[in-house]
Amino acid sequence: MPISTTSPTLGVGMVGYAFMGAAHSQGWRTVGRAFDLPRTPVMAAICGRDRARVDAAADRLGWAAAETDWRALIARDDVQLVDICSPGDSHAEIAIAALAAGKHVLCEKPLANTVAEAEAMVAAAEAAAGRGQLAMVGFNYRRVPALALARRLVAEGRIGTLRHVRAVYLQDWGADPELKLVWRLRKELAGSGALGDLGAHVVDLAQHLTGELITGVSAHTETFVKERPLPDGSGVGEVTVDDAALFTGRLASGALASFEVSRFATGRKNALRIELNGSDGSLAFDLERLNELEFYDGTEPASRAGFRRILVTEPDHPYLEGWWPAGHGLGYEHTFAHQARDLVHAIDAGEQPAPSFADGLQVQRVLAAIEESAEKNAVHTPVHGAQ
Amino acid sequence: MPISTTSPTLGVGMVGYAFMGAAHSQGWRTVGRAFDLPRTPVMAAICGRDRARVDAAADRLGWAAAETDWRALIARDDVQLVDICSPGDSHAEIAIAALAAGKHVLCEKPLANTVAEAEAMVAAAEAAAGRGQLAMVGFNYRRVPALALARRLVAEGRIGTLRHVRAVYLQDWGADPELKLVWRLRKELAGSGALGDLGAHVVDLAQHLTGELITGVSAHTETFVKERPLPDGSGVGEVTVDDAALFTGRLASGALASFEVSRFATGRKNALRIELNGSDGSLAFDLERLNELEFYDGTEPASRAGFRRILVTEPDHPYLEGWWPAGHGLGYEHTFAHQARDLVHAIDAGEQPAPSFADGLQVQRVLAAIEESAEKNAVHTPVHGAQ
Amino acid sequence: MPISTTSPTLGVGMVGYAFMGAAHSQGWRTVGRAFDLPRTPVMAAICGRDRARVDAAADRLGWAAAETDWRALIARDDVQLVDICSPGDSHAEIAIAALAAGKHVLCEKPLANTVAEAEAMVAAAEAAAGRGQLAMVGFNYRRVPALALARRLVAEGRIGTLRHVRAVYLQDWGADPELKLVWRLRKELAGSGALGDLGAHVVDLAQHLTGELITGVSAHTETFVKERPLPDGSGVGEVTVDDAALFTGRLASGALASFEVSRFATGRKNALRIELNGSDGSLAFDLERLNELEFYDGTEPASRAGFRRILVTEPDHPYLEGWWPAGHGLGYEHTFAHQARDLVHAIDAGEQPAPSFADGLQVQRVLAAIEESAEKNAVHTPVHGAQ
Amino acid sequence: MPISTTSPTLGVGMVGYAFMGAAHSQGWRTVGRAFDLPRTPVMAAICGRDRARVDAAADRLGWAAAETDWRALIARDDVQLVDICSPGDSHAEIAIAALAAGKHVLCEKPLANTVAEAEAMVAAAEAAAGRGQLAMVGFNYRRVPALALARRLVAEGRIGTLRHVRAVYLQDWGADPELKLVWRLRKELAGSGALGDLGAHVVDLAQHLTGELITGVSAHTETFVKERPLPDGSGVGEVTVDDAALFTGRLASGALASFEVSRFATGRKNALRIELNGSDGSLAFDLERLNELEFYDGTEPASRAGFRRILVTEPDHPYLEGWWPAGHGLGYEHTFAHQARDLVHAIDAGEQPAPSFADGLQVQRVLAAIEESAEKNAVHTPVHGAQ
Repeated sequence: MPISTTSPTLGVGMVGYAFMGAAHSQGWRTVGRAFDLPRTPVMAAICGRDRARVDAAADRLGWAAAETDWRALIARDDVQLVDICSPGDSHAEIAIAALAAGKHVLCEKPLANTVAEAEAMVAAAEAAAGRGQLAMVGFNYRRVPALALARRLVAEGRIGTLRHVRAVYLQDWGADPELKLVWRLRKELAGSGALGDLGAHVVDLAQHLTGELITGVSAHTETFVKERPLPDGSGVGEVTVDDAALFTGRLASGALASFEVSRFATGRKNALRIELNGSDGSLAFDLERLNELEFYDGTEPASRAGFRRILVTEPDHPYLEGWWPAGHGLGYEHTFAHQARDLVHAIDAGEQPAPSFADGLQVQRVLAAIEESAEKNAVHTPVHGAQ
Repeated sequence: MPISTTSPTLGVGMVGYAFMGAAHSQGWRTVGRAFDLPRTPVMAAICGRDRARVDAAADRLGWAAAETDWRALIARDDVQLVDICSPGDSHAEIAIAALAAGKHVLCEKPLANTVAEAEAMVAAAEAAAGRGQLAMVGFNYRRVPALALARRLVAEGRIGTLRHVRAVYLQDWGADPELKLVWRLRKELAGSGALGDLGAHVVDLAQHLTGELITGVSAHTETFVKERPLPDGSGVGEVTVDDAALFTGRLASGALASFEVSRFATGRKNALRIELNGSDGSLAFDLERLNELEFYDGTEPASRAGFRRILVTEPDHPYLEGWWPAGHGLGYEHTFAHQARDLVHAIDAGEQPAPSFADGLQVQRVLAAIEESAEKNAVHTPVHGAQ
Repeated sequence: MPISTTSPTLGVGMVGYAFMGAAHSQGWRTVGRAFDLPRTPVMAAICGRDRARVDAAADRLGWAAAETDWRALIARDDVQLVDICSPGDSHAEIAIAALAAGKHVLCEKPLANTVAEAEAMVAAAEAAAGRGQLAMVGFNYRRVPALALARRLVAEGRIGTLRHVRAVYLQDWGADPELKLVWRLRKELAGSGALGDLGAHVVDLAQHLTGELITGVSAHTETFVKERPLPDGSGVGEVTVDDAALFTGRLASGALASFEVSRFATGRKNALRIELNGSDGSLAFDLERLNELEFYDGTEPASRAGFRRILVTEPDHPYLEGWWPAGHGLGYEHTFAHQARDLVHAIDAGEQPAPSFADGLQVQRVLAAIEESAEKNAVHTPVHGAQ
Repeated sequence: MPISTTSPTLGVGMVGYAFMGAAHSQGWRTVGRAFDLPRTPVMAAICGRDRARVDAAADRLGWAAAETDWRALIARDDVQLVDICSPGDSHAEIAIAALAAGKHVLCEKPLANTVAEAEAMVAAAEAAAGRGQLAMVGFNYRRVPALALARRLVAEGRIGTLRHVRAVYLQDWGADPELKLVWRLRKELAGSGALGDLGAHVVDLAQHLTGELITGVSAHTETFVKERPLPDGSGVGEVTVDDAALFTGRLASGALASFEVSRFATGRKNALRIELNGSDGSLAFDLERLNELEFYDGTEPASRAGFRRILVTEPDHPYLEGWWPAGHGLGYEHTFAHQARDLVHAIDAGEQPAPSFADGLQVQRVLAAIEESAEKNAVHTPVHGAQ
């Protein structure tokens, strides 16, 4: 059932089939049904280590073939784009190999578990770019329409000179006392805790929305519950990642930024909230109400000024041309269709999509500075390469 | 790419490819990727009058074949379910023929443009039921998870004895002074204006959520702008449908209900809001924030009671087992996947899905009573068959 | 402790010392401390039937003297203004006598329990006006700053041609199953139930904010709980007033209005909500958030338009010159200080303050039409004198 | 007009008559009208340096006498309580002298401009306590009913083990480019900028609501606009205080705290927001909606849990026994009446009211640690005396 028999295709091979794999699949499945595309994505093959489970995933998610070795996936002729949805410790190896094999790459965030890995990925991406291959990191929240609109308003100068960025990303699943020592709580697998999982998103958004880099940070991290029952019931084990992180920083312009990420914010399910205050206006967003953007226009007379709730569902709002009439809201998963749309266009045009691997590396450097500051009694720590 | 090679299939044929057609397509395309189903829906054929356009729609929306005559569509062997998304004046004829041809039927709301048509459809559905065929009307908002949760809380007795239902459905596209005399503003095509388009939804929801019928109504309707430019630029024509309707009524239990629907509520894009007040609690919902349900538990001590915002994204909320982790919101279109899920289960089980054609007829009778009351100076007018 | 030894005084005599008496006292006590006034109000005397209780009230509320007969109060030389806060069945007699005695009069809403009483009061006020005496009815919510701002925005044309008014006033104390048969539930004392108590406010506001009269109504009323325990424990008695009323109507311009008032809206404590939709914009207000006004400016580009929350605490917002810096909210009782401010200015200038007794009579006529419609099966019933 | 001729009086003498003087006056004027008090406050005398202006203030605000020397005020026999509303640099001298003169003292926040001054004040207060005199610092926001309720819920254990405190206090008047170099922007007069003005409040609330001390902090401060026009038009001068401060810290239990205060948060007028997350629940408050408290009860089943908006106007909510029926909101100024109520009761009972001068000193020490950390590159800095 091709969307178009006339446009060229783009074969996609995806690594991973858990939460992110399902979300990316929905993006690839839907993007050509909602948007006009210069190439038609084809869900060519999916890859996972367990044969039975990857076959079931291919069947359920709609991939034409299944592989159990990512090397086989990237070797397939019908795959032009490798979409990496596996855990962070595998990103560097797969991405570098895929680029070496001549494929375009989309890699889930965080780009890698370490700065060194990320640097290697950037080098590989830059080399590949010379061969016409593109690499993109999957900070999908940039493509929530309300946040894309926020970026547009900032770029138009509507908030004036930036003064403050204030961002939190709060969840509460860690507060469950019966939670076991899952892989996300082990440093050797997950790299970090709330910091890499949630902090990477708010760091990327803060830099993307403002168009500025974070130059230095001061940070506290904390692990509230130090031991958890082992999943196999054989006793307890140590939690080796952070449950929460607080960090403050400065942006290149001198604006101040404050951040908090936590898995212990009882009642907050997915509260990525970000606010920007500038000399002429302010913007505020909450992912739990993702179809809305609040905008304060400080150039209005004070007697009529107020934070307005823009319902970001109008035809001329970013990405809305593909969807429903005004007022019919989108959901979380639509960000993956938007990401796919922009990547397909970029590949067709041969232009670098944003965010690049270099953007992902910059986020990684901020995370590294946060960890360094937290270890050094919160002292302000410069972000490498951002000064 | 079948979802499962072992489960039987269910061939779907759809009539219409505009807004509702695109939304239903997204439902059929997605449902088997998100939910476990006893039968695998197959998007067999789509039907539209214009060959080029229906071919393009099939291509874009992912249907395997395209027909230009609905009679051909319902005659296809690979179609077991006919999904009717064409305008209201075509519903009765197609649905009755499809049932006669031995197909299951899903028909968009409103069931028909007149009570007489709806009655004929109910008769056909009842006859077909004896042959094991099922018929359902597409009031998709029943399957917004927050509203499904509301229904569950009412059924559990959590709001006690019902006192009030208060519902509005407000949009604002009619307030555009440059709006032309489109088909939705002509009675011969659309049947009615805001009443059938928006009023049908709130009437159905009021009855569904409360589990009670509306027994009588008092109504005002209004056409604010009496003439509009003709689309072809040849002058102006008369607007022959209502722009807004206000109606109040009584439910079977003696509870009071108030309703307002309008296309002239400037700034309200898709504000379907419904509140229920009972002796023990209250519920409130707004479609512009469709992942939320407000619940007031009146059995709490007054000093700690308050309307709570339930983020309806938990794993044990209705329909959420198929989607994302807590806090990751859904959008408008998911209602169509939920509708498809329940219909596939019902067909497999041979059980009548809700809402039935009889439920659709009951809504039609309420709309007829509203029109009658509006013509008779708002006098309270009984709803036929609801006493 | 006079506020000013140079400005003339205005002696106030108040009838009643319950909730409204305490609220008015706070207004008179505060007004000269917050605002510049041309005359200094003096809390000269308070009146109640029970000597011990009225003495205690004078002491508590800060009145210089206490009377047990309202005739004695209005005869006092140190009283130039009679402020009537007693129940509605006493308003006409006291107001007419006070006017005959040469006093200015402020009378709590509703103006009277019947249209006939209100007509007699208007006649007395008009005769007294020729002698330089002023009469005002106490619809205090007109002087919530957010609603005064709303009126200003409507008058400036910022919402364009009016299409809809939508107002509710919801409370929930009636839903308490142990509530006794208090005087407010007996028609012979209270005149009506939710209708006069809550409905009078929304009718006045709808007319005041729009600058239009309600020309006709269609109404349902209901008494959900028909019998209540007598306060003295001697058995049960019949509830003879409405618990709730729904009414719809038309304004002079052809705009539609919908209203609902209830004492059975569980969880809604004081939810007076009013929304106006016009061709160019909309306004929305909720008394539970009385420092806020929502404004939608439909002349903005759709991509940046949204309901803005104006925090009505800026120095140039109505009445705010007397209070605190921006952002420091006011409460319910401030409306009585604002009412007092405007009345003192009007008396000093010899100009009729709004709302007049005639405005109060007009509200009474709307309430009478509502009751008539409710008795006549909701048929649309013209409001006397409003066509 | 004494409130009661039988209860003893409490003569109050107030220093200062600007914003805080007016607010405190409203508190003293009102408290005995709303609450039952064991002693009747008498507004005996007010003090300011300018004779004409203090006479006018006495007249306007309702004080019986006026002094131009605070030494004369505290020497008056009719003054038993000295209420200090003058700028922070005068607090120590006046408070210590008043205590030496045998008076009770209420001192506005911040207690002093330096830790050394605050320590001297605590010493004086402790000595005076032995003589039966009481001293209190005016952190009025503790007595917003919603925050008093929050404290009650924490003390009842309803949020369980504390994990996070998150507080901001955001205003925007500093963002006005035409703002002159007023005294609040000069360190020699104001001590600090947003930190002392706004930060003192959030530090006190964080410690009060949680019942824990802040043990250490990491801080950034910033002055965005370095020069401002002089008020006399003679050129520009340097801004010597902070415009904004960000600080993070740890509480005694190991919970994390994050704070931000700013005068450059465009559109935020008085946004003191504080959220507490515990193992069993969360609380959230916003001063711009001061009659509301949000409470998440994590012990509810997840499918029905949500942040509930408690309208803190019920009769059994803190301080509400003195005011209006449920749903009738209070304003900013009511906090001063509540403060007066509790202080009068404490004086009558001879019991130390909270917050004490020692509590004020503790806040001062946190502010000093913030300034020290900001100077030392944000390194985590212990709070003296809190370990």
